[in-house]
Amino acid sequence: MPDTTVLAPQTQTRAQRAAASVLLNVPGEGLRMESTLHRSHQIRRINGVFDINNPVLREAVGDRSALIVCTPTVDRLYGQLIRDYVTTLPTPSSIEVMVLDRGETSKSLDAVVEVCERAAASRLLRTSPIVAVGGGVCTDICGLAAALYHRGIPHIKIPTTLVGLVDAGIGTKNAVNHGGQKSSLGSFHPPEHSILDAGFLSTLPVRHLRNGMAEIAKLAVVADPPLFDLLWRHGVGLLGSGFRSPADARDEVLRRSVDGMLSQLAENPFEQVDYRRKVDFGHTLSPYIEVASAHAVLHGEAVAMDVALSSQVAHRLGLLDAQHLDRILALLSGLGLPLAWAPTRVDAMWSTLSSVHEHRNGDLHLVVPTGIGSCAYLGLDAVTPQVLGDAHEQLMVRAPRSAGLTFVETASR
Amino acid sequence: MPDTTVLAPQTQTRAQRAAASVLLNVPGEGLRMESTLHRSHQIRRINGVFDINNPVLREAVGDRSALIVCTPTVDRLYGQLIRDYVTTLPTPSSIEVMVLDRGETSKSLDAVVEVCERAAASRLLRTSPIVAVGGGVCTDICGLAAALYHRGIPHIKIPTTLVGLVDAGIGTKNAVNHGGQKSSLGSFHPPEHSILDAGFLSTLPVRHLRNGMAEIAKLAVVADPPLFDLLWRHGVGLLGSGFRSPADARDEVLRRSVDGMLSQLAENPFEQVDYRRKVDFGHTLSPYIEVASAHAVLHGEAVAMDVALSSQVAHRLGLLDAQHLDRILALLSGLGLPLAWAPTRVDAMWSTLSSVHEHRNGDLHLVVPTGIGSCAYLGLDAVTPQVLGDAHEQLMVRAPRSAGLTFVETASR
Repeated sequence: MPDTTVLAPQTQTRAQRAAASVLLNVPGEGLRMESTLHRSHQIRRINGVFDINNPVLREAVGDRSALIVCTPTVDRLYGQLIRDYVTTLPTPSSIEVMVLDRGETSKSLDAVVEVCERAAASRLLRTSPIVAVGGGVCTDICGLAAALYHRGIPHIKIPTTLVGLVDAGIGTKNAVNHGGQKSSLGSFHPPEHSILDAGFLSTLPVRHLRNGMAEIAKLAVVADPPLFDLLWRHGVGLLGSGFRSPADARDEVLRRSVDGMLSQLAENPFEQVDYRRKVDFGHTLSPYIEVASAHAVLHGEAVAMDVALSSQVAHRLGLLDAQHLDRILALLSGLGLPLAWAPTRVDAMWSTLSSVHEHRNGDLHLVVPTGIGSCAYLGLDAVTPQVLGDAHEQLMVRAPRSAGLTFVETASR
Repeated sequence: MPDTTVLAPQTQTRAQRAAASVLLNVPGEGLRMESTLHRSHQIRRINGVFDINNPVLREAVGDRSALIVCTPTVDRLYGQLIRDYVTTLPTPSSIEVMVLDRGETSKSLDAVVEVCERAAASRLLRTSPIVAVGGGVCTDICGLAAALYHRGIPHIKIPTTLVGLVDAGIGTKNAVNHGGQKSSLGSFHPPEHSILDAGFLSTLPVRHLRNGMAEIAKLAVVADPPLFDLLWRHGVGLLGSGFRSPADARDEVLRRSVDGMLSQLAENPFEQVDYRRKVDFGHTLSPYIEVASAHAVLHGEAVAMDVALSSQVAHRLGLLDAQHLDRILALLSGLGLPLAWAPTRVDAMWSTLSSVHEHRNGDLHLVVPTGIGSCAYLGLDAVTPQVLGDAHEQLMVRAPRSAGLTFVETASR
């Protein structure tokens, strides 16, 4: 029987090695093509992305044509700045600006198609980037559009919300909701660049600052005690100042959040390894709340409630002591985040876990804290609807007494 | 200034190395995540894929749940065989069969969504494959559905047409038509397995055999003289026998076609290297014919006409001698393939090249043969509408005199 032989390629250029592949003739098995797709994603934290003296975006776009997609809010607040900046690009006439008017409830394939059709009308080439300027909904829609248009073109994410800066704008994943399920259609299509400018936070409503704080708190609880301390000491001040002061604390919070999130992602960027990820903390029960509330509850608010519920469950199961539970819940409350969603129906929550179950390939675990900076992965056999229900009831009693704002107040801003 | 440091991951499991990534802190540049997605695609040529004694598909599916998607024709001819085979799988109750009724004209995102919705209803997990049994339209739709559902699940292609066996069923690309443009939305999502069973060809109408012959002839002209000779000697016999005899020639034709196509693909599986690919021969002008005819002209028929036109252009420009031109056109005619599409409007063809231009990133070349087994890439500045028009006229005059069937006859079968 002959040895495995290499059929192709015979020689490789540098570019070919980057997208290395090999065609093998395996005796008794047939042909096997082993292909490797390499992606490079650059993440920069800068100030004044649309300041015409700032070269970062100009260098990122280069002399390519591009489609800049922003939300109506971004257009209202920064549209003129963006258009002025476009005039300084190497080929301003080949840059178009599109305003996409979609909220979380219509984070849909239709919106993705709308962006693709505009890309086609703008005659984007396969190396032309889509530049998304907006929150997580906008960057997700644009990321998926970029993944599909001509089978994949580059994209650049410029998040304008706190969730975007620390989560949606730096990740490799893009998805839209479909058929009543969150993120059921999407792709792994890392951006070419994420350009992170905290300046956008000064115009962000406080409810949306809190929304992002929930993702930061999630990371802090499960993986970063110093970040937890920073939030404990400076979180309220940062919220009150539009993330302007204290500047040192702001920079350190954002740096730790971005580095921490990316470090977690780097271990498993395409989720091929397994489905036990620290960053899924707060993301197992929250999809139920988001969908059941028809997205009246923001993503981060739902994450905060999942963090609270998971922590309460961990305490009930003897995995988290009372002191740490109190500290976690006090941080969330202190940041004005909700601990529980009153209309929650635990049986409905339990039954909708099935879609998360499929999403995580049947390897569904509830990530629960075992302290500040440590966690455990609970198989769902370790949790019952009764345990979830009890935890929910305890949080409902506790919520009104908590130090921070309640959900109703935060939602009404 | 500190050196570049590695932030994550600190340690790697074997699975992590397969999806290797690294997060770098680059002084003066920020963070950079270099990620590598590895894909393994197994290609087997077997007989009797749905013979219950044949373990290949059973081993490929394993104990996973799966969604088998076939066309109405496949369902009519092989539906019972498929369902009988399913009963022999390790977990037959978690396998569903879906009949997808879509033609080339509706190779659309709607069809992709239909498959995704059925995948959701079937509760497919992230490691569950979609198994496509059909022609290129079916395998493309299923490949894109697999790319999108839960951000990517495996798929298995079982092509039942000759185009599928030598092209659509073994490639890494999947796409649907949108907005009047061919393949404008799609993905690079290599199948996990391609299972190639030439037995399906015995029930394939001769027009569809010819359709696949065009792709084989394309490869033969541009890259494989021995394959050209095989087609010259045995092509008509293979068409007449439903690809049953001569068996040696059939096996050699299929082996050379599959190996040749995969060898070409392996040099640039994600089209990151450049856009000059031998396998694009016959695929630059053909999209115009397919779209302008509202897909009344099959893909392979349009490819044959592009091959003829490109060869005629090469001759006109002094790149291909008369003897080789005659040989190429005689092969196509002998196989009953059309040389020209009478309603062609050269100005319209020329203007629709722009979408191919974008698809190939502005690096648009016409692949033209310079002999049997060699080619040149012509910049479009080397070709004018006048040259194309003259070439078309010459083929129109020649076509009725050619040895084979004309387009009208083949189209009416």
